[in-house]
Amino acid sequence: MESVFSKITLEHIADLVDLLGKENVWTDNELLYEYGKDQTEDLVFPPAVVLKPRTTLEVSKIMSYAYKNSIAVVAVGARTGLSGGVLNVCTGIALSLERMNKIIEIDENNLQVRTQPGVVTQVLQDQVLEKGLFYPVDPASRGSCFIGGNIAENAGGARAVKYGVTKDYVLNLEVVLADGQIIWTGSDTLKNATGYNLTQLIIGSEGTLGIVTQIVLRLIPKNNHDVLMLIPFYKMGEAAEVVSTIFKAGIIPSALEFMEREAIDWAMRFMQVDGVNIKDGIEALLLIELDGNYLEILIEEAEKIAELVEGFKIDDILFAESADQKEVLWRLRRSVAEAVKSNSVFKEEDTVVPRYELPKLLVGVKQIGSKYGFKTVCYGHAGDGNLHINIIKEGLTDEQWEKDVPNGIREIFELTVSLKGTISGEHGIGWVQKNYMNLAFQPIELELMKKIKNVFDTKGILNPHKIFPDDISN
Amino acid sequence: MESVFSKITLEHIADLVDLLGKENVWTDNELLYEYGKDQTEDLVFPPAVVLKPRTTLEVSKIMSYAYKNSIAVVAVGARTGLSGGVLNVCTGIALSLERMNKIIEIDENNLQVRTQPGVVTQVLQDQVLEKGLFYPVDPASRGSCFIGGNIAENAGGARAVKYGVTKDYVLNLEVVLADGQIIWTGSDTLKNATGYNLTQLIIGSEGTLGIVTQIVLRLIPKNNHDVLMLIPFYKMGEAAEVVSTIFKAGIIPSALEFMEREAIDWAMRFMQVDGVNIKDGIEALLLIELDGNYLEILIEEAEKIAELVEGFKIDDILFAESADQKEVLWRLRRSVAEAVKSNSVFKEEDTVVPRYELPKLLVGVKQIGSKYGFKTVCYGHAGDGNLHINIIKEGLTDEQWEKDVPNGIREIFELTVSLKGTISGEHGIGWVQKNYMNLAFQPIELELMKKIKNVFDTKGILNPHKIFPDDISN
Repeated sequence: MESVFSKITLEHIADLVDLLGKENVWTDNELLYEYGKDQTEDLVFPPAVVLKPRTTLEVSKIMSYAYKNSIAVVAVGARTGLSGGVLNVCTGIALSLERMNKIIEIDENNLQVRTQPGVVTQVLQDQVLEKGLFYPVDPASRGSCFIGGNIAENAGGARAVKYGVTKDYVLNLEVVLADGQIIWTGSDTLKNATGYNLTQLIIGSEGTLGIVTQIVLRLIPKNNHDVLMLIPFYKMGEAAEVVSTIFKAGIIPSALEFMEREAIDWAMRFMQVDGVNIKDGIEALLLIELDGNYLEILIEEAEKIAELVEGFKIDDILFAESADQKEVLWRLRRSVAEAVKSNSVFKEEDTVVPRYELPKLLVGVKQIGSKYGFKTVCYGHAGDGNLHINIIKEGLTDEQWEKDVPNGIREIFELTVSLKGTISGEHGIGWVQKNYMNLAFQPIELELMKKIKNVFDTKGILNPHKIFPDDISN
Repeated sequence: MESVFSKITLEHIADLVDLLGKENVWTDNELLYEYGKDQTEDLVFPPAVVLKPRTTLEVSKIMSYAYKNSIAVVAVGARTGLSGGVLNVCTGIALSLERMNKIIEIDENNLQVRTQPGVVTQVLQDQVLEKGLFYPVDPASRGSCFIGGNIAENAGGARAVKYGVTKDYVLNLEVVLADGQIIWTGSDTLKNATGYNLTQLIIGSEGTLGIVTQIVLRLIPKNNHDVLMLIPFYKMGEAAEVVSTIFKAGIIPSALEFMEREAIDWAMRFMQVDGVNIKDGIEALLLIELDGNYLEILIEEAEKIAELVEGFKIDDILFAESADQKEVLWRLRRSVAEAVKSNSVFKEEDTVVPRYELPKLLVGVKQIGSKYGFKTVCYGHAGDGNLHINIIKEGLTDEQWEKDVPNGIREIFELTVSLKGTISGEHGIGWVQKNYMNLAFQPIELELMKKIKNVFDTKGILNPHKIFPDDISN
């Protein structure tokens, strides 16, 4: 790719070593290769150098240097992203936040946590849990992803249906701008009507507006109980149909996950777990969790859900009896993506629609697959109307994969948008979805976003060629 | 005020009549006066003309005309604002949204409502309630304020402590830009990781970035029960201290309101209600509501709260026995602001801090009042750390009011910010707080906001001289 940015020279490297110390500047090829990919398909774009700053001031120095020298910079977290946000397409600096991995303060009086971005989401969850507090946002990758990356992509996960996504927990952000200046976006308060909401502008901006170096999150008290049930449906469409029925009945589960049968089959094989016995003919399953402080109420609600699904063609509902059984079911659900990946080359789309439209989306996806000759395995956060569509390469020629599949994806996104949905619910746009952005937005809307990008990053050095379609990109 | 904008001429008026029809263009002085004020102190800045469009297209035509002719435009809702957002300081167009007052669709399948901006918040709440749905954001002015105004200021209210503020319910906005172009900011989905969050950028932007003409809100199922309790404290500081204790005990009330004794005394006098017998020596009260679907749990939680306050010097807790009694208590709480206003010339500050800092804020406010010789009556949404501070003119000379009081306010805001809070929780900055913005933000942060303003509104015609301090204003 042709680039307007400076090619990194040995002199640049020497300057960076001078700034950060030799131990924080990495140039060996194997490492560059690792930092040039995330969990997106089989794409790799290695950077020219990996930097591992330890403080906000060091991040600021790097950006100041990169700004003066017109060097492209990609902020790198745990590289678990699914839209290629971390791909270093201009061969610039990969600025890894992995050494900024301290939880600075758990504030039990205000139910807040102050943290650096390189903390693994689950580590943060576990540490606040020790104080009886709950950070409910849990992407499937929570065991490895960073909280900073969650902010970059506005990550969701299974519990978003009741508790919301990353953006609903962020109170305040320290951000290093493209030229090295350091800002705070808001205040450490639950409410804020003081100027424009820079906090929410940074969340989900995928490293294109600034680099998040400190984060204040609100927490909530931990609930004492949860109930987990797995409902096998003979008809996939009926599983999707039930979803909105549950909410209409006034029940808000803490998770409401949809899996096509193959998704869980593959996960069981991949994890070598066979805890779940799924009958022949079952097309899809709903995994439903209820949580709260009163077990008897959760059981009552679970029974209500059991009644609601009575009219549908289902097999016996499995109620998880023990913590172990719950753990197995969740482990299976969380490993679906990895299982699918291990099985074949794939593309994953992250469609989202208003939840009642889910059955229409599902039918449409299967029809489009038939039309273009590709197989899909679908699963996702049905309670949010968020369906992950995995398109499997197995059985397709390279030509079909490169020509037909993108047309099919475009058609899937067109359907999504026609159902009042959009093209990403929680994975972000990054590199792989950017040329579909014109389906979700009018040119004037994209232009506004692009101008905002220019306000924050006049030289366009932060994560170039991401989010925006090629025709209006850097 | 000197203005870079065109002074409105008879020719402009003729053009606007041509665009909208005579019945939608108003120029009589009495009406201009009314449209030149909101509920902020005693300030009045009448517009040159009031326009009452009925459609998005008409709003677009107005903006297109105003843009070409460099005329300042202030979007006007129900004029219940508390920061002077609606003051027409450049004598331009007041663009009233009052005729765009239709609820377009209540979507029971997706738990959403699509509405025009000129709908009264309570009307929207009542109409969705008829379908068993709940829009929980309820500013004290909900009986008269517009949902569009709530978006402009990111309004909160009593239930924000459990349910969040306006920004937590807005999924998608139709916005007319300064030059008349029409955009949608997002999609009608619960999750969205598709580009920058323009929706959240518009919310709370106080009419300075665009004019909201259609709104999609998410709703939640209505809870069946609530319990309301009023706890009188002999010591004001103890009432504030209890607040964070309740959350630390794992209880999240649906409202947790603080009132200084005088606030409720004045409200009772103003409303001619004497349902509440407050003993001599009581300094402050907490009004606490719990809601949910299971009454027995709410009672259990209320009893837990009663236990938590046992260690403090309190009078008997009043549990509201009937719907009527609840209604009286809420009416009193909601009328406090109006009661205070009716009593004396005043200034109202909308401070917010992390909730554990509330006692320190309260002590500080009283000390600062003593220092500058002014009296304050405080009340607010203590569960959010959001304290409304009413500074009463009674007993002060005009000179004291104009010289000493602003210094005192500055000191209160400095205290707020030093406690990691900010200068507005839910009222916005508007006209009266703008010159305190440098306490909440560094110059670079304000510059970023100002540049975003310029992206949306190149000529600066939308609500000029609001939010930004004079030194960086239009």
